[in-house]
Parts: sequence; structure tokens; C-alpha cells
Amino acid sequence: MTRLSELGESHVLERILSHYRSGSQVIIGPGDDAAVTAVDADLVSTADMLVENEDFTRTWLDWSRLGVKAAAQNLSDVCVMGAQPHGLLVSLAIPNSTDIEDLEALFAGIVAEAGRAGVELGCEVPIIGGDLSSSQLIVVAITALGAIGKDAAITRSGARPGDAIYLAGTIGRAAAGLDLLWAGAEHDTSRAAPDMSGTAPDMSGTDLELARLIDTQLAPQPDYAAAGRMRAASAMIDVSDGLSTDLGRVASASGVHARIDRADLQDLIDPVLPAARHLLGDDAAGAEELALGWVLNGGEDHGFVASSAPFDTPPVGWRRIGEMRAGHGVSLDGEPVPTSGFSHFGK
Amino acid sequence: MTRLSELGESHVLERILSHYRSGSQVIIGPGDDAAVTAVDADLVSTADMLVENEDFTRTWLDWSRLGVKAAAQNLSDVCVMGAQPHGLLVSLAIPNSTDIEDLEALFAGIVAEAGRAGVELGCEVPIIGGDLSSSQLIVVAITALGAIGKDAAITRSGARPGDAIYLAGTIGRAAAGLDLLWAGAEHDTSRAAPDMSGTAPDMSGTDLELARLIDTQLAPQPDYAAAGRMRAASAMIDVSDGLSTDLGRVASASGVHARIDRADLQDLIDPVLPAARHLLGDDAAGAEELALGWVLNGGEDHGFVASSAPFDTPPVGWRRIGEMRAGHGVSLDGEPVPTSGFSHFGK
Repeated sequence: MTRLSELGESHVLERILSHYRSGSQVIIGPGDDAAVTAVDADLVSTADMLVENEDFTRTWLDWSRLGVKAAAQNLSDVCVMGAQPHGLLVSLAIPNSTDIEDLEALFAGIVAEAGRAGVELGCEVPIIGGDLSSSQLIVVAITALGAIGKDAAITRSGARPGDAIYLAGTIGRAAAGLDLLWAGAEHDTSRAAPDMSGTAPDMSGTDLELARLIDTQLAPQPDYAAAGRMRAASAMIDVSDGLSTDLGRVASASGVHARIDRADLQDLIDPVLPAARHLLGDDAAGAEELALGWVLNGGEDHGFVASSAPFDTPPVGWRRIGEMRAGHGVSLDGEPVPTSGFSHFGK
Repeated sequence: MTRLSELGESHVLERILSHYRSGSQVIIGPGDDAAVTAVDADLVSTADMLVENEDFTRTWLDWSRLGVKAAAQNLSDVCVMGAQPHGLLVSLAIPNSTDIEDLEALFAGIVAEAGRAGVELGCEVPIIGGDLSSSQLIVVAITALGAIGKDAAITRSGARPGDAIYLAGTIGRAAAGLDLLWAGAEHDTSRAAPDMSGTAPDMSGTDLELARLIDTQLAPQPDYAAAGRMRAASAMIDVSDGLSTDLGRVASASGVHARIDRADLQDLIDPVLPAARHLLGDDAAGAEELALGWVLNGGEDHGFVASSAPFDTPPVGWRRIGEMRAGHGVSLDGEPVPTSGFSHFGK
């Protein structure tokens, strides 16, 4: 293991650049004052950070998964606009004492997730620029760029009464994983993935389920392809702060009421129940409530929510979870749901 | 004064958004999952961070000037590609205990500098997105976007033997200001600027000169318009790490030798000599050497260096400082100059 302080900046950059993949849209890549790329469409742009001790702790830190998560939270925002990702700029503040192998793992995670999005959506997603600075705290600040045809952007404000509400991917799993991490659960999630031969990992059923929830917190895997299949949506949003909050944003921006059906959430509650039982023991009613809370209010799985005129059969990857009505706010089986969600700065 | 933790995220965002200016290129601005903007040209993108205790300290912190500097270092990189700025994405990690007025001053500084670049280059430069997170350390991570016509980008690699080397703006002043700050000099630079009536500030001549050097460190003012007048350049670079380093990058990328003439630097050395004398006292030879060191190796003024077939009269704002020859590396009056410059990670 070699620390960044022993290598010096130019060698660190050299090692990182070896992880870069180019793309046919790149005219001038990393290494000049700025990158130049060809975008034959309107430009989509978004920026999202991960900050040490706010979004993750050194105790749980898995460098490769941190890279996956940083890329995923940005790529999700591009894809739910209905756009194709175009490239990433990665700014990284990182301690001098970091091992270069860990930094490389971080970049490998970013590159792998960008590559996965590219495969799912049929495009190339290179890292086209960024910055690297030493710092006492780890901060990963990514800007994701995308391309979209004229007037094709899917915003939060187009939902209409009578639309059905659809969900792609999962919700609640990352929040369950976070509570498991706070409770000090084993987080060697590498054991949760099947090995190269496809052999199932050597863990008990429950351990495996819990490890997979933690893995969703550490390295969410948004269903980018599903966003690409929802071109008919009247509104779409990335569930980063929780279903209640993000659906509340759609309701508010569109001037509608979003009614969720509890029965439609059961498939999402069941997989996180073992974690709630693990944390609460014999309190069965409490466990059910905790699990429902994760599903309603937990972000970071980067599930996608969309509204659309009802489908007979929704696009692959999407399930119906409710409908838009006249009014405002969000309700569960008719009971109002608070839409406050996660807030930085303590309120 | 109200702390961010007392306001909560949504009110903080509301206050910040009040500083945003839109632009005619903005189709969907801040407030959705991502921004959508129209770029009728190739896209230029670059990202640069300022990190607390690495790029500035809490002691010197002037929030408005920090915003100016964060914007300037990014806009410079866009402009030296020969591009017009298109917009900024601002990701900000900031302590909970920060006063909202300070955060607003930071955004006002960013908006003011983006506005200045827009006026100089005849374009609009809105903030189109970003992220805000609480953090133990302040990190300002900006991505600047620009637009440029096909094949119009000015890279580092086009310099040819026989080209003259030109400089726009200043070099060495920010480095002198930094050494003054480290030495504990007075940094109430607000007194260095004329007041609204144009009355000269009430400071002695030397104090004023020193305060202005510190102001260049805290809030550099790149000559964006000059970059716009250098369309004929064979190569151009933003001097962010020092003339020796950045000219070394051009020489290396272009496969040429860059010869600087000491006599051409005297106009740049003279204004920083008072700072060197202030720091070194009676050591006149030492002061001259320190001043030359700042000019040769100091970054952060964001002066621009360009190479071009020699002009009879260079474009307004540009001065000749040397010439490109066959060979490699950088020399001063024929003596090789090390091109190592500033390095993160200690080497």
C-alpha cells in the first residue's frame, strides 16, 4: 500500500487516469484546462456530493462502493429527466494519508457504475474531467451531464389527476441498511454477492438478506433502463430523500394529490421486515411499523417514481403503487402522510 | 445572524435561490432533478474545488471573496479554451453552524464573478444547479460549463517554435498575498477598494499595495475579455499553479521549449517587491529573489499565457514575455527553470 503523500500529485493523477474510459463524444478529454465534448441535443446537468461523517463514516467506508454510490446518485438524476448520460466530472477531496489503491478502488467504482448505466441505456458515459485535492475529510463531488431531445425532458410538474403512480426499483432497503449499520451490524457485504462461478455465498438466509440491505445503502443500483422505458411519463423523480418527500415534491410541483395504496407497498415492506425484526426483537407490531417507515420515508435506493396515464401493462421494471387525484399532498390509504423527509441542517 | 441549523434545508435553499440569475439558455433551472439548457455548440466542462485548510483557512475567510475565487478559478479554465461560459453548478459542503448571511455572501460572490465574466464576454452565466450538504469542513466544488464552436478549442498542445509567448493579467501577486497572510499581515482588504464615490481609501501607500496583493489571493480577477481577444493563439493556459509549471505544461504538450525573458517580467516583479521587502526587511537581494520566485512559481492570480505567431501589436491586455523554440522545458534568459510547481499530496 502506498500513500498519496508518498506518490505526489502527478503520479496520483497518472494512476487515476488509467481508470478513465473515453467515449466517441469526447473531443478533448482530461488533461487540458477543460474538456470539450459534442452534445447533439439539449444539455442536462446535475451535481451531488457525498461528505464524510454526513453521508458515510470511515467505519463503514468501502471505497469501491463509495464510488458506485457517488456515481449512482448523480446518474439517477440525469436518467429521471428522460435523458441519456453524457459524462461525469469528479471532484475529490481526500486525505494525504489515503492509500493509492483505495483511491483507485473509488475511481473503479465510479467507472463501473457509469459503465453499467451506459450499457443499460445504450450510450457511453466517460469521466471527462474533475479535480483532486488533499483534505482532512473525504468529499466526493460529482457533476453528471446528459443529453436530451428538445422538449423531451420529464419534470416533476406534469402529473395530472387520473394518472397512475408507478415505481421502478426498490425503496426502503437503503434506509434499513443504514439503521443496521448504525446498530453495528456486520457489513462485510462482499460476502453477499455470488462469486464468479455463480455459487451462492456461504451465509445463512437472514444474514444474507441483511447484508444485501446494507449493500443497497453502500452501493445502490438504480434501474436506469427502467427510466429509459418510461418516456410516456407525465412526471418522474428519483427517490433520493424518501417516497413521501419526493412524491410530495411531484404533488406540489404538479398541483395534485398523490394517493398511495398500502397493499401495493407490501412487496417492498416484506424484504425489509427481517431487518426490523433483527433490530427490534420480539416487538412484531413495532417491526411492521419500522419497515413501513423505511419504505415510506427512506431515500438512497434511488428507486424512480413516475406518473402516467394508466397502462394496461406498465413498462418492464415498473409497478403501480397509487394514483394522482385532485388536491394536494400525499396520502396512504386516504390518511395524510407528512412529506418532510430528510433535511440537512437539522430541521 | 441566523445559523443554517436553525433554518433547516428548505429555507436555506430558498435564501440561496434568491441569488440565482437565469439566462436565456436555461430551459429548466434549479429545482428539478437536473437542469436542462440549450448549448448550440460543443460543450466545454471543467471542475475545481476550494478546500478549507488546504486552499484557505478560517482565519482569512472572507465569504464573498471565497465565492469570487471559486467562480474565477473555474471560469478561467473555460475561457482559456477559447470558449464562452454557459453556466455553473455549485456544490457546497458547509458547517451547520454557518450563518445564513455568510452563505448568502458566498453565493453573492459567485454570482458577481459569473456576472463579471458574462459582461466581459457578452454572455449570460447563470448558476444552473448544484448541491448543498452540511459538513465539518468547508468545500466549494464548482463545475463550469462553456460553449465553443467546432474545432475552435485552444489547447495546450498547439505551440510551435517561433511563436511568441504572451501573458494577460498578472502573475505573482496572489503568491505574495499568500505569504503576507501566512506572516499574519492585516487582511482587511475591504479598505483597499475605492468606496462608491471613488474616493481613494485611507491607507498609506505601502499598506494599500500589500492589501491589494492579499486581495488578489483572496479574490483573483482574471481578465476574461483578454482570453476572448486571443482567438489566434496556437496554445493557451490558465496560470493556476505558477508560470513555470503551467508554461512547462504547454511546452511538454506541444513538444517545444519555452524561453522567458527576465527583462519582460520586471513589470510584474516591481509590484510585489514591497511585499518581499516587508517580509524580509533589509535583505535587498533576498527580496528581489523572493519577488522573482513569486512571479515565476506563484499561481492563483489566474493570469493567462498564450503562444501565437508574433503580433506587431498584441491584442489589448496581452504583453510579450518570451518565445517558443525547438527543444523542451522552460528557461529564463537561457537558464533552465524547474517546472514542478505546486503539488497536492506533498511532492
